[in-house]
Amino acid sequence: MKKTRFRVVFGFVVGLLVLASCLGVAHSQTAPATAPAAAAPAPPTGSADAELKDATGKAPTMMQLQSGDPGGTITGTINDVPAADTKAGVTLPDVANQVGQNKIAVNFTWTLITGFLVMFMQAGFAMVESGLFRVKNANHTYMMNFFVYTCGLFAYWIIGFAIQMGGAAGNSNLGGLQSLSSEHTVSIFGKMWGLWGQSGMFLAGHTYDVGVMVIFLFEMVFMDTALTIVTGACAERWKFLAFAVSSVIMGAITYPLFGNWAWGGGWLAQLGTNVGLGKGYCDFAGSGVVHAVGGVTALAVSMIVGPRIGKYNRDGSSNPIIGHDISAVLIGCFILAFGWFGFNPGSTLGASANGSLRIGTIAVDTMLAGCTGTIGAILYMWALKGKPDASMSGNGILAGLVAITAPSGFVSPTGACIIGLIAGVLVCVSCSFVENVLKVDDPVGAISVHGTNGLWGVLSVGLLADGTSNYGGSWNGVTGSVTGLFYGDASQLVAQLVGISTLIGVIFTLSLVINLVIEFFIGQRVSIESELAGLDMPEMGQLGYPEFVFRPEPAVLMGQA
Amino acid sequence: MKKTRFRVVFGFVVGLLVLASCLGVAHSQTAPATAPAAAAPAPPTGSADAELKDATGKAPTMMQLQSGDPGGTITGTINDVPAADTKAGVTLPDVANQVGQNKIAVNFTWTLITGFLVMFMQAGFAMVESGLFRVKNANHTYMMNFFVYTCGLFAYWIIGFAIQMGGAAGNSNLGGLQSLSSEHTVSIFGKMWGLWGQSGMFLAGHTYDVGVMVIFLFEMVFMDTALTIVTGACAERWKFLAFAVSSVIMGAITYPLFGNWAWGGGWLAQLGTNVGLGKGYCDFAGSGVVHAVGGVTALAVSMIVGPRIGKYNRDGSSNPIIGHDISAVLIGCFILAFGWFGFNPGSTLGASANGSLRIGTIAVDTMLAGCTGTIGAILYMWALKGKPDASMSGNGILAGLVAITAPSGFVSPTGACIIGLIAGVLVCVSCSFVENVLKVDDPVGAISVHGTNGLWGVLSVGLLADGTSNYGGSWNGVTGSVTGLFYGDASQLVAQLVGISTLIGVIFTLSLVINLVIEFFIGQRVSIESELAGLDMPEMGQLGYPEFVFRPEPAVLMGQA
Amino acid sequence: MKKTRFRVVFGFVVGLLVLASCLGVAHSQTAPATAPAAAAPAPPTGSADAELKDATGKAPTMMQLQSGDPGGTITGTINDVPAADTKAGVTLPDVANQVGQNKIAVNFTWTLITGFLVMFMQAGFAMVESGLFRVKNANHTYMMNFFVYTCGLFAYWIIGFAIQMGGAAGNSNLGGLQSLSSEHTVSIFGKMWGLWGQSGMFLAGHTYDVGVMVIFLFEMVFMDTALTIVTGACAERWKFLAFAVSSVIMGAITYPLFGNWAWGGGWLAQLGTNVGLGKGYCDFAGSGVVHAVGGVTALAVSMIVGPRIGKYNRDGSSNPIIGHDISAVLIGCFILAFGWFGFNPGSTLGASANGSLRIGTIAVDTMLAGCTGTIGAILYMWALKGKPDASMSGNGILAGLVAITAPSGFVSPTGACIIGLIAGVLVCVSCSFVENVLKVDDPVGAISVHGTNGLWGVLSVGLLADGTSNYGGSWNGVTGSVTGLFYGDASQLVAQLVGISTLIGVIFTLSLVINLVIEFFIGQRVSIESELAGLDMPEMGQLGYPEFVFRPEPAVLMGQA
Repeated sequence: MKKTRFRVVFGFVVGLLVLASCLGVAHSQTAPATAPAAAAPAPPTGSADAELKDATGKAPTMMQLQSGDPGGTITGTINDVPAADTKAGVTLPDVANQVGQNKIAVNFTWTLITGFLVMFMQAGFAMVESGLFRVKNANHTYMMNFFVYTCGLFAYWIIGFAIQMGGAAGNSNLGGLQSLSSEHTVSIFGKMWGLWGQSGMFLAGHTYDVGVMVIFLFEMVFMDTALTIVTGACAERWKFLAFAVSSVIMGAITYPLFGNWAWGGGWLAQLGTNVGLGKGYCDFAGSGVVHAVGGVTALAVSMIVGPRIGKYNRDGSSNPIIGHDISAVLIGCFILAFGWFGFNPGSTLGASANGSLRIGTIAVDTMLAGCTGTIGAILYMWALKGKPDASMSGNGILAGLVAITAPSGFVSPTGACIIGLIAGVLVCVSCSFVENVLKVDDPVGAISVHGTNGLWGVLSVGLLADGTSNYGGSWNGVTGSVTGLFYGDASQLVAQLVGISTLIGVIFTLSLVINLVIEFFIGQRVSIESELAGLDMPEMGQLGYPEFVFRPEPAVLMGQA
Repeated sequence: MKKTRFRVVFGFVVGLLVLASCLGVAHSQTAPATAPAAAAPAPPTGSADAELKDATGKAPTMMQLQSGDPGGTITGTINDVPAADTKAGVTLPDVANQVGQNKIAVNFTWTLITGFLVMFMQAGFAMVESGLFRVKNANHTYMMNFFVYTCGLFAYWIIGFAIQMGGAAGNSNLGGLQSLSSEHTVSIFGKMWGLWGQSGMFLAGHTYDVGVMVIFLFEMVFMDTALTIVTGACAERWKFLAFAVSSVIMGAITYPLFGNWAWGGGWLAQLGTNVGLGKGYCDFAGSGVVHAVGGVTALAVSMIVGPRIGKYNRDGSSNPIIGHDISAVLIGCFILAFGWFGFNPGSTLGASANGSLRIGTIAVDTMLAGCTGTIGAILYMWALKGKPDASMSGNGILAGLVAITAPSGFVSPTGACIIGLIAGVLVCVSCSFVENVLKVDDPVGAISVHGTNGLWGVLSVGLLADGTSNYGGSWNGVTGSVTGLFYGDASQLVAQLVGISTLIGVIFTLSLVINLVIEFFIGQRVSIESELAGLDMPEMGQLGYPEFVFRPEPAVLMGQA
Repeated sequence: MKKTRFRVVFGFVVGLLVLASCLGVAHSQTAPATAPAAAAPAPPTGSADAELKDATGKAPTMMQLQSGDPGGTITGTINDVPAADTKAGVTLPDVANQVGQNKIAVNFTWTLITGFLVMFMQAGFAMVESGLFRVKNANHTYMMNFFVYTCGLFAYWIIGFAIQMGGAAGNSNLGGLQSLSSEHTVSIFGKMWGLWGQSGMFLAGHTYDVGVMVIFLFEMVFMDTALTIVTGACAERWKFLAFAVSSVIMGAITYPLFGNWAWGGGWLAQLGTNVGLGKGYCDFAGSGVVHAVGGVTALAVSMIVGPRIGKYNRDGSSNPIIGHDISAVLIGCFILAFGWFGFNPGSTLGASANGSLRIGTIAVDTMLAGCTGTIGAILYMWALKGKPDASMSGNGILAGLVAITAPSGFVSPTGACIIGLIAGVLVCVSCSFVENVLKVDDPVGAISVHGTNGLWGVLSVGLLADGTSNYGGSWNGVTGSVTGLFYGDASQLVAQLVGISTLIGVIFTLSLVINLVIEFFIGQRVSIESELAGLDMPEMGQLGYPEFVFRPEPAVLMGQA
């Protein structure tokens, strides 16, 4: 039997080789005689174009290229510059146009690929969340994380993007984005303040544009990150329909509104130009816009949804509820750390021009803050409990990454280490505070990881921005580099505090009201029976791991204590 | 004990810091006095090169660079343009050559990285498939998905690539690919029609070329995607050896043949230039070439292999066979959606020149179709069964992604949403049709996801291509943009229908014949005992999860009903 | 109930559409009348800048761009080239500066993104390792893999990077890296030999530089790969604290030292310029620097730690210890193969200029060696045991990938296939040798995969480098292409052998001494009780999968036989 198999495989490979040889012979017989490249025309003298014509003549011919270029020495020359008029050959305007094309191309490449990495973070969030939950809710948790991508994208395509970025024209990295031309503004004290954007619905009409598509993709995946944060805090008891409606509204309205104020040319970004507060509210990649908005919304919704059965005892003390899969938690963290290299460095929206070469610093800052965040959380828990704790290690890296998100474009590696270390300790303290003081049940620590540390990240810009960044010489329309209190600009800190207050006040209130309305019309929480049985069967009709055998849950978590 | 640990860690970090400081001091003592950059020579006047020499003189010196560039303001200037003659300095031809080099470099970067993303889809397919199967076949399923990458690549390297792309010279995005110079053609009605390529075996000789390597990598991962589709439809009962042989033949011959006709300059691509049918058969990223070929092959092979024991009752009704891991299914879908950002946008084969900036639109189209595919499938199942279904949600996103693959380069975001929504419903209907009408057992729905929706994707190009794409002003050698029926070009639809008919006719027949031969010589199916026990031990000698405890299978699936 | 849900969803989508329409109307009412772009000024004649001014006039205006550019035909032109003096418009120096900027930007993009892929390999290593271990150690294994990323990064930031790359100035792909300006050297026989670098501690001072950040990120993830190799060989019995200390020292000192000699301008790289041995020690992407250093360290540490309880019987024969999750092993391998496309092709440190277009060849070589490595291991095991073996298939692809790492930049696709095939067989033989002859317990085969095949990879450069590579015309400062024995340069093989001897001698000795010191002060191994119970509870305080039910372990592995 074994021999037969080998004979089959062997005869097979021989057959393929013979076939290959035959084709090779056929090739040498039938290969068309390709015309030699035309001799280079005699170059005229004296002008730029003459010099270029001369260079074209010296460049490798098509016949040379046909012989193959293993070393990469004859590929990629003046012959690869497209000529507007092929008879005239490559002219100086052709060269200059291709330079502009190359700049936009590398910026598109950078922004899209980093955007793809951010999209992949959805897998990481799904794994971290599910791993920290009980196995009886696995399918429900995965489906929330899966469907939120769809919900959010659809809402954002219809209206959210228009609200956020509809007035964002002028980004030279991506070719101008001129068709995002309309921001709704109000005049206060003689200054115009942006409130929301008004172009880009359905990506139709003027905004069916290659540059707009790139910014849409990048902004969309950020929005989806914010949405997915809420699912972590409310899982194991959130009704699927309520979740879906809540997420659509957040993607359509709540998130884009604050996004406009901070990134779309809205009033927070104008605090610098309008009233001289630093460079306006500065949030490089969204510690505030994405993470704190997600975390504050998570707080509001989880307050409405209430704690899981068995989480709190009658005396107010809490019981630990242990997740079912540490491997998913830590692999999820790796995926998130990987995706964060898209999140932060991608937020330059390009690699070429406007100081975008700082992408390397941003990536290293991101990496270092995640590192010191882990160290902070591990050492804190090690000191507290005598052992490093896997779940809090994961939360430590995420806390560091969340905190560095806003300042990543403005601080030094040392600054990043400090920000991350504080975040790593802060997340442990905050988790304990939310659980034991606020008495809010947040199974994954989303409020602490994204909310608390998101706000710390925004604040840290006002403290540690070192004034060395240079994105074309200005930020939010104010000349100069973003500079925090410790480097001399106290007004930047004020701008950050205005942003923080606005975020907490507006987002918490809006989220609370919207989700109370949902509570009234749909109901946010599953029935007690469903919760005890696990949400997989009643809500999804299918278990997460139907063939595996599980241990019974502790009685205290079944409401029997 | 705890204290000891802390002392160790603490002493340790202090030690490192001291070491760092020493080196720092040593550095300041031993740093070599670097020579100041030579003063810029007096620029001559009047010519382009004089202007450049002047600019070089004004550019940052090496000494300035030695002080570090935290803001990215002095890195990346004329000084980074290599001069052919370092004494003469940077000349206009140097600038122009570097412009061509940059264009090719950004196009290589784009094509390779998107190709890497496509390769990573193999992990997604493995997870989706295995998650939908029973735990007793987990190892076998993973090994098929793992080995198919190898099988396919090896066959494609020997001969497949040559058949598909051997005559594909002329792609200016990648530097010309001049060494892929030989297509075997026949003359019919006075027109030359391409049948297969003839250069590129083993990537040796003339085709040992930097550009050819890039296109090989990109085309190879597409081919492997097609191969892996078949494993999903035939799993839980396919003999490993039969699978290996079948896959090698598909990678060596079946797939490359159709690939040549559509993408390698073959006769389907020539339908426009030769007989005026639109722009010829248009399949931007392979709804047909990759997915429908995979799906149609899956149909042929799964008909030969037959349904799993217990799938169908004597009265012809079918039993559900539930997969063992929903988390794997949905994480797999995320990986696939992530990889699809390589699949579709990467198919421009570049970002710079030839209208390649449309990559952003392609990415957004891809994202939106996946979104509406999910919505379609979820709402359809929700309406039908009262609950959203996780497995069909996953198939919904995949169906949308498969369908948008062919049209992604030619339709608007709104068009993409329509295509995806139809796909999401279509996959549910088709799964039911295959299971209950055709009575073909396709455990993952591969025939419906990839076959049915692949064909729908190809068709949709002929309907919804909106005529706004512009890839250097022509497609398949026909001037103008690809335009579907609804935008005025009925002949494009005809070209698509010719492609669909050819695909079904040729691929189904070829696959059927080849796999019947394999059935005769090797046998496609494992023994009844192996199937009931699960394929892991008899075929692979090892269980997937040896330490876990599982529930017994329902009697009906053990052939005992 | 179902109807209610639909009404809610429906009403909701209608609401969003209405809102979108309102905004649309609002937009058309309030969109500001944008000023038409100023008419292009009359171009002067005769000079290069006049030609450019003329081209600017012909380029698309802002008003045209406001109408959207669906086809990507008017985005990316001379208008996207920034002008130093906006009044004068785009001049030739502006064009040339932007060309340099584009070159650096595409090289940063390439190096960073490939670096991100390498970082993601940590997830792959974690999965492969944990999958091959018993479930009772799952949390401990994941935590080692998770924390090693942090440990290593922190140590490398403090001092490791400075030691390795502190004297690496001169890389023109990344803008020069001029601030890495200090290598400590000694003079022997009238030649200067580099021993270690001295700038870059904390990335502060002069080395707070955009280019330095890029190289730091890329080198850091390589270092972390080496560290994680050791955890695989020593898992299931390694004390967490000992692991942490050992890893920090390796990241701070051992790894960077050899890294400096090979890549940082140290003495092994100087073997060509100083004593005429080929192009010096050549290790393109680190078969030696990363993998063999990791593998040799793993050998030293696992010798100190000793075999797991139950691995060896009294008569010296060994028992198989089977891992708990094949899916994790093979998905981990896919992640690693994906990340290897960063590892090898990224090691050009750029895509533009200096022959960096060879990235495509490097990627294909990598892919092919992984393929033939798998084939080698599968056929060897199939022949030996009658069945393909999943674990060894995984090790086969990794062995091929490890072996091609050093030669990937210098060999042809055919050469890569040969190297991989040998590696695939070699890893099987070596695993058996380590287990049965050396009697060293290496649960994942790390010593064979990374150590044995790392050394084979280094050696293969000296044999199969074909002399076609061209990285700016020289390597390690020696003019010409790297060429192995079979292509005519025997002295290259000697350089490789010097590197191999040094690596084994220095790294093994250093690792042994350092880890014996750790053994003395901390103790490397957990207690017998902890090992038998599994390390998860005693070391980490938490099980990996707390809700799942597991089979009891075989008595022989509990020390009871």
